[in-house]
Amino acid sequence: MNICLYCITLQLDFWISNPLYFTLQAAATNDEVDTSKFMTTPVTDLQKLQETKDDMKTKMELMIMKIQADLCKSLESFDEKKFIVDKWLRKKGGGGISCVIQDGTVFEKAAVLISVVHGNLSEDAIKRMKSRRGDIKGKSLPFFAAGISSVIHPRSPMIPTFHFNYRYFEIIDDDGQKHWWFGGGSDLTPYYLDVADAKHFHKTLKRACDMHNPKFYPEFKNWCDKYFYITHRQEHRGIGGIFFDDLDTLGSQGTFEFVKSCAEAVIPSYVPMVRKHVNDGYGYAERHWQLLRRGRYVEFNLVYDRGTKFGLATPEARIESILASLPLAAKWEYMHSITPNSKEEELMNVLKEVKDWAAEDD
Amino acid sequence: MNICLYCITLQLDFWISNPLYFTLQAAATNDEVDTSKFMTTPVTDLQKLQETKDDMKTKMELMIMKIQADLCKSLESFDEKKFIVDKWLRKKGGGGISCVIQDGTVFEKAAVLISVVHGNLSEDAIKRMKSRRGDIKGKSLPFFAAGISSVIHPRSPMIPTFHFNYRYFEIIDDDGQKHWWFGGGSDLTPYYLDVADAKHFHKTLKRACDMHNPKFYPEFKNWCDKYFYITHRQEHRGIGGIFFDDLDTLGSQGTFEFVKSCAEAVIPSYVPMVRKHVNDGYGYAERHWQLLRRGRYVEFNLVYDRGTKFGLATPEARIESILASLPLAAKWEYMHSITPNSKEEELMNVLKEVKDWAAEDD
Repeated sequence: MNICLYCITLQLDFWISNPLYFTLQAAATNDEVDTSKFMTTPVTDLQKLQETKDDMKTKMELMIMKIQADLCKSLESFDEKKFIVDKWLRKKGGGGISCVIQDGTVFEKAAVLISVVHGNLSEDAIKRMKSRRGDIKGKSLPFFAAGISSVIHPRSPMIPTFHFNYRYFEIIDDDGQKHWWFGGGSDLTPYYLDVADAKHFHKTLKRACDMHNPKFYPEFKNWCDKYFYITHRQEHRGIGGIFFDDLDTLGSQGTFEFVKSCAEAVIPSYVPMVRKHVNDGYGYAERHWQLLRRGRYVEFNLVYDRGTKFGLATPEARIESILASLPLAAKWEYMHSITPNSKEEELMNVLKEVKDWAAEDD
Repeated sequence: MNICLYCITLQLDFWISNPLYFTLQAAATNDEVDTSKFMTTPVTDLQKLQETKDDMKTKMELMIMKIQADLCKSLESFDEKKFIVDKWLRKKGGGGISCVIQDGTVFEKAAVLISVVHGNLSEDAIKRMKSRRGDIKGKSLPFFAAGISSVIHPRSPMIPTFHFNYRYFEIIDDDGQKHWWFGGGSDLTPYYLDVADAKHFHKTLKRACDMHNPKFYPEFKNWCDKYFYITHRQEHRGIGGIFFDDLDTLGSQGTFEFVKSCAEAVIPSYVPMVRKHVNDGYGYAERHWQLLRRGRYVEFNLVYDRGTKFGLATPEARIESILASLPLAAKWEYMHSITPNSKEEELMNVLKEVKDWAAEDD
């Protein structure tokens, strides 16, 4: 196994400067459900969480609450603004916790959102689901879904935009059988290519995957490249990462452990880049380019992203959460052209192809 | 018939300050095809246009070329920038003329686009078409389409955004039968409500409609209200106008005359508002509000607009033309809230309902 010195340095750097990380890790090993470090109280009643500690629903909710808190606190260390914590309840069951920094000094818009919802699936939703999972029977099925999703749009064009989401789905069919699966992924959208960053990001994700199954990274990296593709522009949204859905191959606990590893890779994969570039200089030209690229981000999210489309088509959905992924500002220029051999062209060349970043030597 | 003094004044104002309008009107009555006032030479060869003067394809192309030139020259009179004229050819037949002002002093992005294309309809396109027009038979059908479409995004939040498009479609089925129809509409998206403007806009459109069929305005106004609706926000994109499709009820020449009237109403319906508000003062708050509303414009165009969706899904489509409708800049704020009893709230209240502007007294 190759050891990536770059990553180790960056991660040590992260751990040393985030003592909180150790504290939270330690708390998680306790017997009592410890919610003291969370951004707010969980959606599910604390007593219920305590009583159902071994239920996957509880494990997932606590895991994403912890990831949310870790990430928010880590990002807050860079910004003069703090996350605004917005807890909301869903009429039909469950709710969510939205943590957002907007117009911050470092983060133009950073959203770290949790939702833990349950109820009955509409016939429409079952239909869509059935096309993917033909073995589910029933007209109105009880379901549970818990997920964390996040988009970080830094102000500086020198720091990439970062997106991830990890989710767990449970459904009980008419025969009383439980169907469950995990989904998620992390991907990076730089405005300027930093090859070391790209390698670091992919290698961190690869390590998280490899711990569980050596086939995961190549498969989910490929899935990510295919998913985050802006067909009408014939370009990728960013430099990829991992993406998976309908995952249950490692069994309930095993798949959870895999997803937990991915979620725990969020901070070490991204935050070092924030630290590395937070003081990089830039001017109007770089900011302008970033805003144009953010236009492409909007195009992808509104035209192709299944989650966004599904959300917008869902009656009574929380639109603010669904569209929190959009950047604070974006631009569209008619016939924008790129200077040959520029940094902008370097990025575009990479977005037009697929690269195996994790295989590259350091 | 009520005479709207407001409109007459505004229109006289327009005619007096646009002597070109008379010139072009006069030229159009000549026997020779006069292209001298157009933004550039038409897509179709001049000799062919001359030889097929009585063909609807020619009439439509010349009509939209004239409207494009009239509007561009009218808008240019306000701006220090001139329209950039971009003529493009389509590999499979025909082409277009795109006139765009970008980052102008008055117009942040103004696109007045023409396309005149022909070829064979793919099976996919026929399928979509057939669902609307079941009487068309054939697998690969020769078609012709000519249209003008435009979005004007002024820099000032005090001037509304304006959109229109008028188009003609012809298709020959396997039995050699010609199917044809017109479509189009004009609609207005203000950032601040000016009741006089709203009435003027709708009354101008109503007059254009009423000359041809008194049922048109109410029907097409209703269609427009329904079409330009952002379902997930439960709000209209703007204050409406008219919208129609598949129109042939007045016969070929009669329907053309109706569409011509609508297209000729473009300048008198909109340009007076530019003149009225071009020197209105505004500050950061109004600009910020405008950018947030432009975010909604992007949402509508990318999520709902059939033309945009169809365009983006068409292989080898000219993406720059399809997305020229997007504003130069847009914003998305998480949980933006509006001050009660503000000008912003006044607009939002109007966008949540449907008003019969043309029926209102002056």
